[in-house]
This record gives sequence, C-alpha cells and structure tokens, in this order.
Amino acid sequence: MDYNKKALQLHKKFRGKIEIKSKVPLTAKDHLSIAYTPGVGAVSMAISKDKEKSWELTNRANQVAIVCDGTAVLGLGDIGPEAGMPVMEGKAAIFKEFAGVDAIPLCINTTDAEKIIEFCKLIEPSFGGINLEDISAPRCFKILPRLEAELNIPVFHDDQDGTAIVVLAALINACRLTGRVMRELKIVLNGGGAAGIAISRLLISQGAKKIILVDSRGIIHKGRKGVNPFKRKIIEAADKQKLKGGLSEAMAGADVFIGVSKGGLVDAKMVKSMNKNPIIFAMANPIPEIMPDIALKAGASIVGTGRSDFPNQINNALIFPGLFRGLLDGRIKKITAKMKVAAAIAVAYSIKPSRNKILPPVTDKKIVRAIAMAVGKNS
Amino acid sequence: MDYNKKALQLHKKFRGKIEIKSKVPLTAKDHLSIAYTPGVGAVSMAISKDKEKSWELTNRANQVAIVCDGTAVLGLGDIGPEAGMPVMEGKAAIFKEFAGVDAIPLCINTTDAEKIIEFCKLIEPSFGGINLEDISAPRCFKILPRLEAELNIPVFHDDQDGTAIVVLAALINACRLTGRVMRELKIVLNGGGAAGIAISRLLISQGAKKIILVDSRGIIHKGRKGVNPFKRKIIEAADKQKLKGGLSEAMAGADVFIGVSKGGLVDAKMVKSMNKNPIIFAMANPIPEIMPDIALKAGASIVGTGRSDFPNQINNALIFPGLFRGLLDGRIKKITAKMKVAAAIAVAYSIKPSRNKILPPVTDKKIVRAIAMAVGKNS
Repeated sequence: MDYNKKALQLHKKFRGKIEIKSKVPLTAKDHLSIAYTPGVGAVSMAISKDKEKSWELTNRANQVAIVCDGTAVLGLGDIGPEAGMPVMEGKAAIFKEFAGVDAIPLCINTTDAEKIIEFCKLIEPSFGGINLEDISAPRCFKILPRLEAELNIPVFHDDQDGTAIVVLAALINACRLTGRVMRELKIVLNGGGAAGIAISRLLISQGAKKIILVDSRGIIHKGRKGVNPFKRKIIEAADKQKLKGGLSEAMAGADVFIGVSKGGLVDAKMVKSMNKNPIIFAMANPIPEIMPDIALKAGASIVGTGRSDFPNQINNALIFPGLFRGLLDGRIKKITAKMKVAAAIAVAYSIKPSRNKILPPVTDKKIVRAIAMAVGKNS
Repeated sequence: MDYNKKALQLHKKFRGKIEIKSKVPLTAKDHLSIAYTPGVGAVSMAISKDKEKSWELTNRANQVAIVCDGTAVLGLGDIGPEAGMPVMEGKAAIFKEFAGVDAIPLCINTTDAEKIIEFCKLIEPSFGGINLEDISAPRCFKILPRLEAELNIPVFHDDQDGTAIVVLAALINACRLTGRVMRELKIVLNGGGAAGIAISRLLISQGAKKIILVDSRGIIHKGRKGVNPFKRKIIEAADKQKLKGGLSEAMAGADVFIGVSKGGLVDAKMVKSMNKNPIIFAMANPIPEIMPDIALKAGASIVGTGRSDFPNQINNALIFPGLFRGLLDGRIKKITAKMKVAAAIAVAYSIKPSRNKILPPVTDKKIVRAIAMAVGKNS
C-alpha cells in the first residue's frame, strides 16, 4: 500500500484528524443556563476559592498539552511548527482512541529553550500534564529537568522517555528470546539526539555495560573533541572499548543495533559483521536504518522498526497513552525512573514473545491498562 | 430553577464540558500507518515545503484558541486562570454546537500584557484565529491592536467587540420598536472596562452623539483627574452634557441604560427618573444591574439582560460563533469595523422584533449563517 498517497488523501479529506466535542447537552435554553451563564459563575467561584477544584470541575484532570517546536519531527528534522502538526494531531487521536486522554497539540513558533519553558509554565493551569514532542537535542535535555522542577504537573518528553521505555521493553523480550542478559550485551546505539541519550541512560540504569554511541561524526569516544556533556556522560559510563571509527567499526561483533537517527545507514555487510543472532532495532522514521527483509537475510535474529506496517513495531505510541492514563488517574506530579522501568516491564511481560512479536501491537488496548497500573503502583 | 446548584452538579458529573475526538478511524494497523507513521511523514513534508498547506491538511482552518488570563471573568473580576476555565469550556462547547468551530481554551498563568502578546504569537502556527476572553481593561486595549498588527490570523476580543456587536444589534431593534434614532439617544453606559469602551466606540461610529460613561468613581467628565486615555477619548467624542455626579445623576432623562459592570446598581427610582419608555440593558453577569421585573414595573419599555433565563438575552454568545465561522470560512486575516456593523445589522434584521424578543435566541442556528455571510461579504 502507498501510505504516503493514502495519508495525503486522508488528511485532505478530513482536514486534519481531531476535533472538539461537547460533553454536555446544549440544545435548550436551560442547558445554556447551566453550562454557561448564569450557572457557570458558581463553578468559577468554587474554583476561585479552592484551585484544587479545577481538577474535578473542568476537563483539566483528563487533559494533556502536546508541545512541539517542530525541530525534530519524526526523522525529518527541523521542518517547522506548522509541519509538525500532522504528527501531533496523530498523537492526539491515538491518546484519545487508546487511553481516553484529551490531548491538545500546540505547535509553537519558537526554538528558544527559555521561551519553551516559559510557554509550558503559562499553560499549566489548563492541563493535567505536558507531553513535549519533537524538540531537538541538546535543548530538550535542558528543558525537561527545568520543567520537572518548576511545574506541579508531570512533564514527559516522548522522544526521550517514551522511546527509551519502549526500547527497554523490546530489548527485555529480545534477550528472553535469544538467551542473553543485559550486562553482557555489546550495544551499538546510532543517534546522539534525544532518543539516543535517553535510551542509553535507561539501559545503563538497567545494567547495560557496553554501549557504543555513534552520531553523524562517527563513534563518540573519550578523545573526541566538541562532544556535548550529555554524550560525554554516557561514554564515561558505558564505553569500555575505546573504539574509534564509523558505524562499520562499531557494528563488528555487536549483539544489538539500536538506530534512532537517519534511514538507510546500515547494510547487509554490517549486519553480517555482528555477533551471532544479532538484534536489530532500526527505528528511524519513516525510513528505517535497514529494511527488515535485508537484515533478516543477512542473519539478524530479531528485527524491529518504528513502523506499523512491519512486524515488531517499536514505537512510543505503545507507551505514551498508558503512561499518561496512569499519571492522570493517580494525579501524579512527577515521572520517576521507577515508573519508567515498571512501564517497560509491564509491556514486555504482557505477552509471550516470539521473533515476529517481541512487543504487543500498538492497537492492543489492554496494554494501556497494564502501563497505567504499573505507573500508579510505583508512584 | 437553581442554576448554581445544577451547574455545580453538571460540572462535577462530566468533569468539565469538552473533550477531543478523532475525526479519522484508528482501530486497525493500516489506519495507524496512514494517520500516523509512516504515512504522516509525507503530510508533514508537504506542509514543510509550503506552509499554506497547513490550512488544508490539519485542523488549523477550523481551530480557534480561546486565550484567557482570568482577570475579568464574567462579572466576577480577577479570579485566576483556573477559575476562568469553566467559562472558557462553555464557550468552546457553544462554538462547536452552534458553528462547528473547534475552540481550545487556554487559561494562562500571567497578567503581563507583553507576555500575553508573546503567547498568542507563539501559538499562531496551530490556529486559524484567536478569541481573547476576559482579559481586563485597560491591558486589553493595548493587547488587541498589537496582535491585530503582528499576527496573520484574526484576533477578536469577545468582551470588547462581541459585546459591542450584540449591544448594537439589540439597540437597533429597541430603536425600531420605540421609534427612536441613534443620533438622538441619551445613553448612560455604566462600566468603563473592555465592554464599556468598545460599546461606546461602536455606537459613536453608528451616529450616537450623547453617551454618559459612568465607572466605579461616578460620571467620567472632562474635568476628572486620572482618567485613562481610552475613556478620555470617548468622553471627548460623546459627552456633550458635561454632567458630574453618580449613576443617579446620569440616569435622569436618559433614553437608554447599558450596564456592563456590577450587578444590583440600578433601582426603580433611577428607572423612573429616565425619559419616557426607557430602554434598559442590564447586562452584568451573573447578577444584572436591575432585575427585569423591577425595571418593567418602574416603567421600562424594553429590558434585556445577559442571562439566558430571562427574555431578551443580550449575550455575545449570539455573535462569536457566527463571526468566527465567517472568518474561518473566508480565511480572513483581520476583523474590520465594517464586518462588526454588518454582523450587528444581520442579527437585528434576522427577526421581526417585539418587546419581549428584541434579539433572536442564542440557540437559533440560522443566526450563525447570517453573521458568517455578513462577515464574508464585507471582507
């Protein structure tokens, strides 16, 4: 199927993907007197006297802002806020369909970290949580902790934590299937952006010892100049081999390849150079680092991508609906490392994995419940 | 009916009044491949190449932001952004129910005019228009023209222009019924805030010669000190009587009372002191300046309020849905004085008025079409 053509047709026909709906009847005069003036005055006054009441008398408790500056949309890069909107509307549609969460896409006209932080602080009274989306590194590493410290609602950067959680879940099951353990894996992580750093951090917290981080300039090693502090910290924790060179050098003998950068960077030769029964997560969107059929033919044991049209979709769409469902239901103010790991384990152990099904499908609504419960229990 | 109690029950039961709905199917894997990744990438790229396409491939062309800082909510004053939300959700529900417009309430955590202006500029890529709401005077007089000059989407301040348009429509019909003409009216306007100034401006543009503006300190006359330039300009244009004193002095001999301030300020004696067959628009919300039964008993010919539970509701809810329908349908970038007058005339002449029906009901969806057409024709 030509998804690009179908997608353009769908978006043109429906003019986007989400709309607003009233939850209350509004057809008679009396309805207006209750939902609007004069009755609404009593509701406003009740909240004015006790702000906590905004959580029970407005939609806030079920409402999440998707904040995007358009700088790192899918694997397409800095394409601007207007162009980010179709992806954000898609996320909002998924939020509602799978978790009943009302998410509102706000694609904004700045790339200044301080302005993005201020923007999120301004909208806090209207929302129960904030989902940062497609904000490029390294700005996102500054924005997220600042917001976590300065807001009283949970802030989640999907490209960091959503991706890290789903990769951890997939890797847990790939290890179960291939009889490996985390601490013995040699992992090549291609991509030094938001996802690459966050995945590295989470895998290290779960016992990973060898991660070779590769970016557009090649392997990031201790001696390389101009390496930002976020990358440097990963290298110091997990680069035991002090390798230099490019992606080919990194891949030789590796157990796992995780790609969260550009499509088409990996070839059959590189896969053949890996350890026996290698695990390939080629997650660049919309074009993966290597197509699954080529990777499998070259000897890969398990291949996953970010796309829904291949088996083993490793996509944060599996995580964010349930995670926010749990955060909102528990009125949780901050996302912790414990919650992230619990979410990954809940996803991994929700199925009996096989090589063509290392994760449950994104369309499985039971997963939302499982993640929400894991988050709630660990709050 | 006890609207306050009913309103609190309704808001608690539904937890607010609006929700997000997906416009596209999302149940199967193929749906996700078209609405989300990989297909959505083609849609984002199309917009990135030509930003104009955001108007046809996202919901932007039907989407309005309701921006509120919580400083002038109904007649309740500065009650904060959280407390503004029930009113904004009510507006959003009305926007959708009556005009099919998707409006998103954004109650924000600042009262700084520059920050509100910057906020609106940040969200421009996501919306087809902005409805400023319940932002107090005199800041709103600075914010609106700045945004009109600096944005490429229409910006409407409902408390100014929405109120002014609906009052003009009501006054046109009250004049038709009582055989008066605008230029001969002696009008008392109680309220020197957003609505009071905007109503004065619009009525003056339509020929009104005598407007006595009264605020919390009494009649605003030329000799009074500490009068802001917005009020001063009205006085210079329409205060031919140089009256001093309070509301009682202003009312003596007046043809029209328009109240857009606090409830309960007008008594039967004041109404009796007015000209024969006086017109009373007691629009303070939720408590009017004088209750209709008392005003009628004191000799008022026509009495309107802002509420839906009395006859003659004079409420901007009659205006904003149709106005934005017209703006969005015509992709209009700026609201002009001509459009506002055309909207008022369209509303007034949509019915054959009577003393108990000087305006069509807010629930009459034909009015939306009439206003939208008037706006479109005058763009």
